[in-house]
Formats: sequence, structure tokens, C-alpha cells
Amino acid sequence: MSQKRAPLVDPSKNLARFDGHVRIVGTGLLGASIGLALTGDGLDVALADASPSQLRLAVDYGAGRPAAETDDPDLIIVAVPPDVTADVIAAELERYPRAVVTDVASIKSEPFIELTRRGLDLTNYIGSHPMAGRERGGAISARADLFVGRPWVICRDESTPRQALALIEDLALDLGAVPIEMTPDEHDDAVGLISHVPQLVSSLLAARLVDAPDAALRLTGQGLRDTVRIASSQPELWVQILGANAAPVADVLTALRKDLDSVIDALEHPDARGSRRHLADAIAAGNIGVARLPGKHGQDQRFAQIVVMVDDRPGELGRLLTELGEINVNMEDLRLEHSPGTAVGLAEISVLPEVKQRTIEDLEARGWRIASV
Amino acid sequence: MSQKRAPLVDPSKNLARFDGHVRIVGTGLLGASIGLALTGDGLDVALADASPSQLRLAVDYGAGRPAAETDDPDLIIVAVPPDVTADVIAAELERYPRAVVTDVASIKSEPFIELTRRGLDLTNYIGSHPMAGRERGGAISARADLFVGRPWVICRDESTPRQALALIEDLALDLGAVPIEMTPDEHDDAVGLISHVPQLVSSLLAARLVDAPDAALRLTGQGLRDTVRIASSQPELWVQILGANAAPVADVLTALRKDLDSVIDALEHPDARGSRRHLADAIAAGNIGVARLPGKHGQDQRFAQIVVMVDDRPGELGRLLTELGEINVNMEDLRLEHSPGTAVGLAEISVLPEVKQRTIEDLEARGWRIASV
Repeated sequence: MSQKRAPLVDPSKNLARFDGHVRIVGTGLLGASIGLALTGDGLDVALADASPSQLRLAVDYGAGRPAAETDDPDLIIVAVPPDVTADVIAAELERYPRAVVTDVASIKSEPFIELTRRGLDLTNYIGSHPMAGRERGGAISARADLFVGRPWVICRDESTPRQALALIEDLALDLGAVPIEMTPDEHDDAVGLISHVPQLVSSLLAARLVDAPDAALRLTGQGLRDTVRIASSQPELWVQILGANAAPVADVLTALRKDLDSVIDALEHPDARGSRRHLADAIAAGNIGVARLPGKHGQDQRFAQIVVMVDDRPGELGRLLTELGEINVNMEDLRLEHSPGTAVGLAEISVLPEVKQRTIEDLEARGWRIASV
Repeated sequence: MSQKRAPLVDPSKNLARFDGHVRIVGTGLLGASIGLALTGDGLDVALADASPSQLRLAVDYGAGRPAAETDDPDLIIVAVPPDVTADVIAAELERYPRAVVTDVASIKSEPFIELTRRGLDLTNYIGSHPMAGRERGGAISARADLFVGRPWVICRDESTPRQALALIEDLALDLGAVPIEMTPDEHDDAVGLISHVPQLVSSLLAARLVDAPDAALRLTGQGLRDTVRIASSQPELWVQILGANAAPVADVLTALRKDLDSVIDALEHPDARGSRRHLADAIAAGNIGVARLPGKHGQDQRFAQIVVMVDDRPGELGRLLTELGEINVNMEDLRLEHSPGTAVGLAEISVLPEVKQRTIEDLEARGWRIASV
């Protein structure tokens, strides 16, 4: 497939490099989003799903066509729940021996070990994991741009065939993602730390609210809301993920419990020598940890921000947006901040990083004041 | 003061009910924000701060005038760090025996016990705690609307004088806040659960990132970012808060540790009978806890949301905002969501709840499609 690559449709985008046939098994959020993006690039995408109604929905949403008996796919993407991923990969490898097969499951060691145990020829299999998701699942929440700017882990070891690796890297790039190569173990340790442990910690914290007095909950602010946001995740999915990545998650939680023990000890003896220091150290260690996260915290990493000062008069914000259109800038997001009684509000607009400087210059030339860059 | 209340300046707002003299001690974020709001209502606000430069900054920002020797305040608001709150309250009660004194410290039992221990007459003191804040501190971050729609705890017990209680309730209402009466112990248990424990849990989680491999951190998504956002809080402030509310926080953390222990046990024996069930129960308990939080999660509680479908053509969003101005609707916030390749984007606008229905009707009359209400 990489040999017969079509010319780029749009040199500004990294899209439509495939011209082979794609088959997607599982049309939930990830499968349907991949289908939407590849269909949008003009590819033939065949969809399969154990649930006929889910499949019909994904077809209706434009993620592809229903798979046919006569299909002869070049690339197969398995996007099914973790606990059936190995079975489906095995079935696809057997049914389509010519195709390269990947999966998007969020754990990579366990399926690989299971497939190896079955004695399958894994030359055509290469596991991957796009780090993208939404709070809502299903084809109904699918988005063609779900993967733009997101990391896409591709699992390789010394035996991984170069050609299969290149094909999956192209897939990730075509979808706008950033391919990152890791071994299955490196991947599972990493997601244990940055995804599975935060899920459990958020859930354990939220569980403390179950028996809380109503009056206490009325005081809830944004800090608690943010900390427990992911605690609304589905138990059915997470028990599969946690079960398949139990050891790395247990290791991190055990280290966290050691820190928790000494914080509790300091709180139980707040006037003991060293207790205050210990609490300050615990908060300071959190400062250091959160500062290591790439990019500005809490903001969409894909875009650059520009803060424009907008007079608090009717129509001024509309004029700003109209002029952004006139200077041909596509605004990706907008946040407003204004305090009643002040004469000026702040409009934080998000743009693609490459147009940030030009946008600032063009806006300033038109008399807009930029508050911070 | 409540006897000589001026008529309401604007019947649509609950402002400017005071006409007495206000003194604010401590001109950080909270003190300066209260000063901004009351000055904006036309009140005489005298400011005092141990730091002359902080005081000058707050005066420059319009939070009030510097305090004078001849001042004779009716209401004193103490907004200093927790560990000096009791000292400052005692000094103010002694210096201005005629004034009602409140404070805004985030712990309420310890200062009250300390003041009682000193044998002071506390008839004129009533503690309070506005549940508002920002990530940035200082007068430079002050906002007159910081308290709008936020809970404002007012601490009472059977000996609290009615008149002082009414005065502080009026203050909270004048600033747009929602007064909530609690005893000091009820308050401290509540904020231990919904503020202090989340802070420590977020910090302990973020501390796990200190030694993480760079490659793992590159995979960070929004879930981890949200969960550790408050871990960037100041150790200096938090060690005072935690030290003053140690017992309630230790109780909640001890209960959380019990849950954590059994999650670790399940992960260490993932194939043991009941382990999967136990993990699913832990996630499900988090679901129940987070569902108890009032309002839609993660959204600003003060506003109602309207989702408008906007054609993906230049100028359409500008036209929407211009027309919102024409129908006299003040947009408080705007979020955009659009998927490349689709013909329509979604603009989620936030408005005051009381204008939501009218806005929908006026927009529909002008041909806009409302996506969900």
C-alpha cells in the first residue's frame, strides 16, 4: 500500500496518503472516528460490528459502508473492547492473511502475549494506541478530527517488520496524530501512570462524596469538579483496562499509598516537629510533578492562544470575529473573561500555532490591542 | 447599618444596600475583590495591609482608599492569611469596638476557638468564608464579580447576634453570593471533604509524575491534566489551611486509604475471585459520588447554556454575536466545537439563566437553529 501511495490531495494537510482498502472492526467512538476521517479523504472504508444497530448508526454518520463478503482489505483496524481485542485480531489475521492488522486497544502487552501464546504468525500485526477520547462514546460522538495533535503510540520491538510499521505511522499521520514508538511494556507502564492511576485516584476521591451531607456538596467549587471529572467513566470498560494492566497500576498506587500514609501521619500529629514541613513538601512535590506536563496546563495543546482586549460595548466582539474572518484566520476556540464594571473584556482566541504571529500583526494593524502573547 | 440602608440603586441587582463605612484588612485577591465590588457600589472603602506595596497596588486597582487614623468603620472585613487571622480579628475588635467584624479565612473552628480562649467579647464578630478564588492571587487578579453565584458560608451558633448575622448576609448578597449558614465545625468538615482532601489527593497524584519518563508524559491527556490542575497551588498557603483543619482531613483520607488498600489488593490478585467485581465497584462508587455534585459537571454554575448551529462559512459566527447584541443579550462565555469536513459548527453560548428562554425564541425567530437546550 505504501508503494502505490497517491499524491497528496492538499499539501497543507497530511491527508489521503492511502489509496488501499480499509476495514474497521468495531464502530464505537474510535472506530467510527477513524472511519469518518478516512472516508473524508476519499478512501473505501468497510465497517463491521457485532452489533447491527451500532453498525447502521456508524454508516448513517458517514464513517464508511457495511463490510461485504467480497472485501479484500489492505489495512484492518480493530477497535473493539479490550477483553475481545486478542480474539478479533486473531480472527482477522486468519481471514485476511494479506492485510496488515492493527488495533487501538488501550493495553498493549496482554493482547500481544495472548496472540503469541496461540502460536499465530504476527508478521502482519502491529499494535497501536491513539491517545484520544471523549467523555461520550459511540459512533454518535465520532469526530474526524478526534486524533489531530494527539499522541498515537505504535508498538514495536526488534522483530517488527519495517513495512507494517511505516503503514501504521502513515495512518496516524494521515489522521493528524503524532506517532510515538514504544515497546508494549513501555506503553503499559506509561498509560498506567498517566491514565489508569489518575482514573482510580479520581474514582476513590469521588467515592468519598457518596455519603457526604448535602450542605457540604453545595460548597463544591471548580477544584473538586476538575479532580473528579473522569470519575464518571464507565466501570465496564475500566475493569477490563485495569484487569489487563494490573501490575504497573498496583506499583504506582503502592508508591502513592506510602506518600498518603505519611501525609495522614503528619495530619494526625499536626504540632509534631516536622509535620508542617512534611505537608508543605507534599504540596511542593505536586507542584513539581504538574509542572512537568508538556504545554500550558488545561489548555488544548493543538492551538496557540492570543488575548485581545475588547471594549465592553455591544457589537465589539462581533466586529473582532468579523475582522478575523476578513484577515482569513480560522478561530478554533474562544474564551471570554470580563468583569462587570470594567470598560474592557478579554477575548482569548485559539488559532493554529503557525498563524499566531501573523494574526497578532494583522489585528494590531487594525487597531486591536493584544493583552498578552 | 442595616437600619439606615439606602434604596436599591438598580432593582435588577442586589447591590448597594450598605451606606456605612467599610474597612478591609488584607488586600490580596479576596480583600481587593470585595473592595472593588463595594467601591463600585459607591461605598467608602478603607484599605489596610501589612505590605505597603500590596496596599498601593490595591488602591491603584480601584479597590478603595488607604485607611486613615480618623476612620470609624461600621463593618470590618479581615482578609489575611489563615495563620494571622485570629490575631488580626482580635486587634480589630479592640480598636473598633463599635464595628461588626468578619473574616474570610478558609477555616472557621480554629480562629473561633483561639479568640474564645483569649476571653474576647465576640458579640461583634461573625466568621464567614466566601467559596471563591482564582488560580492567580493578589490584588492584580481581583474581580468585582468574583463572588457572583458562589456559596458564602456564614458561621453561626445559638449565641450569634441576629443583627450581625443579617449584616454579613447582606454583604454576601450585595456581592452576588449565596449565603449559607453553618456552624464552624460543620463548615470545617465540609471544606475538608470538598476542598482540602481534593487538594492533597491531586498533589499526591501529581507527585507521582516527578520521576516519570519523558516519553510517558508525552502521552498526557485531558483527564490527567484536570485531575492534577489544583496541584499547582501554593505550599505556603496550604500548609496553614491543612494545619488548621488537620483532624477532619485526616479522617477523610483514612477512609480513602482503606478503599485504596483494597483496590491495590484487587490489582495484585487480578484473577482472584471477586477482584474484577471489586474494581468495578470502586469505579461505580466514583460514578455515584460525582453524580451527587450539584449542576452540570465542569460548567460554570452561574450561567445557562444554549447551543446554536453555525454554518461553517466566514462571518457566520460574527453575525451570530452581532445579532445577540441586537436582541440585547449579554453573552457571558462562548465555546466552539466543529469538526473539519462537516458543514456545521456548534457554538455553545452561556447566558444568565433568566434570559435563556427569550434568547432561544429571538434567535429562532431570526432563523438560527438551536442544537440542544
